[in-house]
Amino acid sequence: MTNIKGIGASSGIAIAKAYKLEMPDLTVSRDTVEDTAAEITKLYEHKAAVEEEIKTIKEAASKNLSEEEAAVFDAHLMMLNDPEFAGQIETKIKDEKLNAAAALEDVANMMIAMFSSMDDAYFKERAADVKDVSTRWKAHLLGKKLPNPSLISEEVVICANDLTPSDTATLNKNLVKGFVTNIGGRTSHSAILARSMEIPAVVATNAIMDNVNDGDLVVLDGTTGEVFVNPDEAVVKEYTEKKEAFEAYKAELKTLVNAESVSTDGHKTLLVANIGSPEDLEAVKANGAEGVGLFRTEFLYMESDTLPTEDEQFEVYKKVLEGVNGPVVVRTLDIGGDKKLKSFETPDEMNPFLGVRAIRLCFQHEDIFRTQLRALLRASIYGDLHIMFPMIATLGEFRKAKGILMDEKAKLEAEGVKVSDHFEVGIMIEIPAAAVLADQFAKEVDFFSIGTNDLIQYTFAADRMSSTINYLYQPFNPSILRLVKNTIDAAHANGKWTGMCGEMAGEALAAPLLLGLGLDEFSMSATSILAQRKRIRSLSYEESKKLAEDCLNNTMTMEDVVAKVTEATGITE
Amino acid sequence: MTNIKGIGASSGIAIAKAYKLEMPDLTVSRDTVEDTAAEITKLYEHKAAVEEEIKTIKEAASKNLSEEEAAVFDAHLMMLNDPEFAGQIETKIKDEKLNAAAALEDVANMMIAMFSSMDDAYFKERAADVKDVSTRWKAHLLGKKLPNPSLISEEVVICANDLTPSDTATLNKNLVKGFVTNIGGRTSHSAILARSMEIPAVVATNAIMDNVNDGDLVVLDGTTGEVFVNPDEAVVKEYTEKKEAFEAYKAELKTLVNAESVSTDGHKTLLVANIGSPEDLEAVKANGAEGVGLFRTEFLYMESDTLPTEDEQFEVYKKVLEGVNGPVVVRTLDIGGDKKLKSFETPDEMNPFLGVRAIRLCFQHEDIFRTQLRALLRASIYGDLHIMFPMIATLGEFRKAKGILMDEKAKLEAEGVKVSDHFEVGIMIEIPAAAVLADQFAKEVDFFSIGTNDLIQYTFAADRMSSTINYLYQPFNPSILRLVKNTIDAAHANGKWTGMCGEMAGEALAAPLLLGLGLDEFSMSATSILAQRKRIRSLSYEESKKLAEDCLNNTMTMEDVVAKVTEATGITE
Repeated sequence: MTNIKGIGASSGIAIAKAYKLEMPDLTVSRDTVEDTAAEITKLYEHKAAVEEEIKTIKEAASKNLSEEEAAVFDAHLMMLNDPEFAGQIETKIKDEKLNAAAALEDVANMMIAMFSSMDDAYFKERAADVKDVSTRWKAHLLGKKLPNPSLISEEVVICANDLTPSDTATLNKNLVKGFVTNIGGRTSHSAILARSMEIPAVVATNAIMDNVNDGDLVVLDGTTGEVFVNPDEAVVKEYTEKKEAFEAYKAELKTLVNAESVSTDGHKTLLVANIGSPEDLEAVKANGAEGVGLFRTEFLYMESDTLPTEDEQFEVYKKVLEGVNGPVVVRTLDIGGDKKLKSFETPDEMNPFLGVRAIRLCFQHEDIFRTQLRALLRASIYGDLHIMFPMIATLGEFRKAKGILMDEKAKLEAEGVKVSDHFEVGIMIEIPAAAVLADQFAKEVDFFSIGTNDLIQYTFAADRMSSTINYLYQPFNPSILRLVKNTIDAAHANGKWTGMCGEMAGEALAAPLLLGLGLDEFSMSATSILAQRKRIRSLSYEESKKLAEDCLNNTMTMEDVVAKVTEATGITE
Repeated sequence: MTNIKGIGASSGIAIAKAYKLEMPDLTVSRDTVEDTAAEITKLYEHKAAVEEEIKTIKEAASKNLSEEEAAVFDAHLMMLNDPEFAGQIETKIKDEKLNAAAALEDVANMMIAMFSSMDDAYFKERAADVKDVSTRWKAHLLGKKLPNPSLISEEVVICANDLTPSDTATLNKNLVKGFVTNIGGRTSHSAILARSMEIPAVVATNAIMDNVNDGDLVVLDGTTGEVFVNPDEAVVKEYTEKKEAFEAYKAELKTLVNAESVSTDGHKTLLVANIGSPEDLEAVKANGAEGVGLFRTEFLYMESDTLPTEDEQFEVYKKVLEGVNGPVVVRTLDIGGDKKLKSFETPDEMNPFLGVRAIRLCFQHEDIFRTQLRALLRASIYGDLHIMFPMIATLGEFRKAKGILMDEKAKLEAEGVKVSDHFEVGIMIEIPAAAVLADQFAKEVDFFSIGTNDLIQYTFAADRMSSTINYLYQPFNPSILRLVKNTIDAAHANGKWTGMCGEMAGEALAAPLLLGLGLDEFSMSATSILAQRKRIRSLSYEESKKLAEDCLNNTMTMEDVVAKVTEATGITE
């Protein structure tokens, strides 16, 4: 039994066999061969095996993927069976006495370079096909096994160095019971994905890939970060019981879908959802969200090779506004930093998190910004729209962004287009400068939404993606609580409201603190809402206020705050 | 006449001919040649020219450089005249019918790779020699001209994309009258260098290299950022007068070397210097600094291939402590971020400014940290030592750092080594979290020193090295003033003191604000001290307090603050 400790990234218990998602080393030797005829026979024997394998994957994938998505495997088969492709490899083996794997690699690289250089989407896809097929063929020639996640046919825990969006695209989500990764943090892609799929996950173990083999039994606790490889019976029994208890608790939460988010002494808050696309609206409803506190609009820009048109955006915004019974806060484009677009070249920067991202990028490319604002303004009549600008550091930036918005509103109205007069305009509080000066901002904005992921990263000057210094990701440090308090008080003094749309809003320990600090709106992954609602319904507002005040003034460290919260409420995680 | 606008980085006026410091394109074609004998003759003809050139540079450099530094040119000559080197190139031309430049490049690359791969300082230097010599030889073969700054023989304004430390090592400092660069900012290396050399400089013009040729007349104003290429007579006359006025003002400042830094109503402050090595002590004295507010110890680590020993460090700290009549604040090692060492591999990070730097790196390599602390403790008996930890974000980090310091103190005392009991232990306030929680920190530290360069960068989440978003480098934004105020008040409430060692401490506009906020110690480039002293001696403390209070509470933007300061004091820059 091996016991590994990571960061719990999505709660729940998983018990299943390990499936390692790992690309083997496919380095090819440049050895020449004497018996070229034997090498060519070997090439074609493996080609037949590759063909069988692709057909099997296609068969399996057709159950999980759309017809269009599965069609990519037909393209792979066509490429594999293209006599020109195999013929060139054969010639290379004969002429240069090169071994089959090296000859294959040379021909594939040449074809990839050729296809890639053509400025045409069709040929670029062919380059991807050559890459996929040749990698698979090469693996066969080298006697290596590629991971084939789409062939998973039993319940598994995926073990990987990290998970990328493309790794997970073809996964059968019914069979994946959990994730364990070597790197990442609570806010990494793998962690967010696991929470949205509602499957337990542990990240940043630094050790799983060295300690697990395919088929080993893995037990993981996504709350504590505990992982066991080939555990003994006692551990399996203990975690099977924990798993059942957790599932019972989840069932209880389902009864709160239509309940109010109200403290025991009658203080009402709003529990709303973070969404990334209209597809998330189902989860918003299923988890009883009272609105949308953060609609990240990046998906519109990240999916395609071209920028989305005003009409395309309008349709999406309209759909979301019509689909939500409550306020909808739409964040304008937040790319740059770690988020890149295919349709648009963002600059390479030494410190991208401190660089030209979000509103800064929009100011540099005002046409893109104006298109989004027009689409939002046109959609404003279909629901309770709140427009929110990200990464605002100075009042000058807010005035400039709002000026552009009002300019587009006037233009639309002059064109005879109907625009609502009741939408609100607010900002993310995610840069320390804005949190410190919230009293001045509150005179001009309609609302704040505190983005804790970035606010914490900047307040501690610590990259939230760096596993070496993740000890500085301290949502409960009194310095963060003071910035939150300063923001909320500034809003209230000016008759405005404050939400929070970072990870912190959904955390258990944050519930009494944020309630006590007077936060008006908690926005989180839809899947966190019911648990947070249960907590808020168990807390007293008056006592939470006293607790928050005590933490603001009488603590020196995050540990001090956690101790006070645990002592007062019994909440420990 | 071309008029270019950049950022004024070092005040004063320069009027001189342009000297472009620019590496030409030395891309080599792979063309083969028929007449290899002619190509070999060409190779040796240019070799003779290169030999003459190196001798000339050596001659010129010997006037500016130490004997040891000039000896590098002898090594270059030996390498050039090594028959093995030329012989290999000759063979390559003959055997492969390759042109001379390409053959030279191939042989040089092979030799560089060979020397570099040997784990030996001697051979690594040889690799550098081959690189220098072969680059020069290749330039001759290609008919390109390399810049030879050490051959400058008349007064010039250096124009460059950016200046690196190695670019400036061999400059004749008497002949360089100014710098103009394409990139950089007020805190970039070029800017800091210009200020320490007391020569006018303009950075971040984005345009100088496209608009100037060698020998063009350049006029630059390092205060306003104005640059003129081939100006008309009226401009030359205007700036010649400005230059004379500026020089008269500098002469007046020299009369304040022994004056107190005191307001008109008797409020005393301390004006101290930032230094980088014991060599700076001369400027400290010449400019009447009342102590050292920031001794950056990185130079000890950056100069050599090996880490400095405890004894080497002790000697340096002792020298500085003995050489300063006043307090000396020594900052412990602050590498990482943009500062790399040869003797020590710092990790590659996605956002180095938000990464493992300064105290974070010292915690990961406690042996390096302990060695520095022991050297400081041993030197503590030779002056008024203040030990300062950089990049402290949490009280936990301060306690850990101080714990290690006290542990080494106890060890030294147990070994019978004498350590002072009167040194102070403080922190840099350069991370927003620490500024916000200064009241709690002030209970445990002896002093604060506000590092505005980083504090501003983190408070606005804007890389101070990025020219695209340098509008967010806002020292006078009310949010920064509030963090400064919070820090100073917290220190005073606990009987402690606060200094400032960022660029802001030396700025004209900052004088009334920082005086009014109650800053105890202003630390800056030695060359800024006399001007700042003159300003403080002209200001009333009581009126400055009112001005600062007004700016803290009644301004929304940096522009508002600047307007109020200018209105109250007449200071405009």
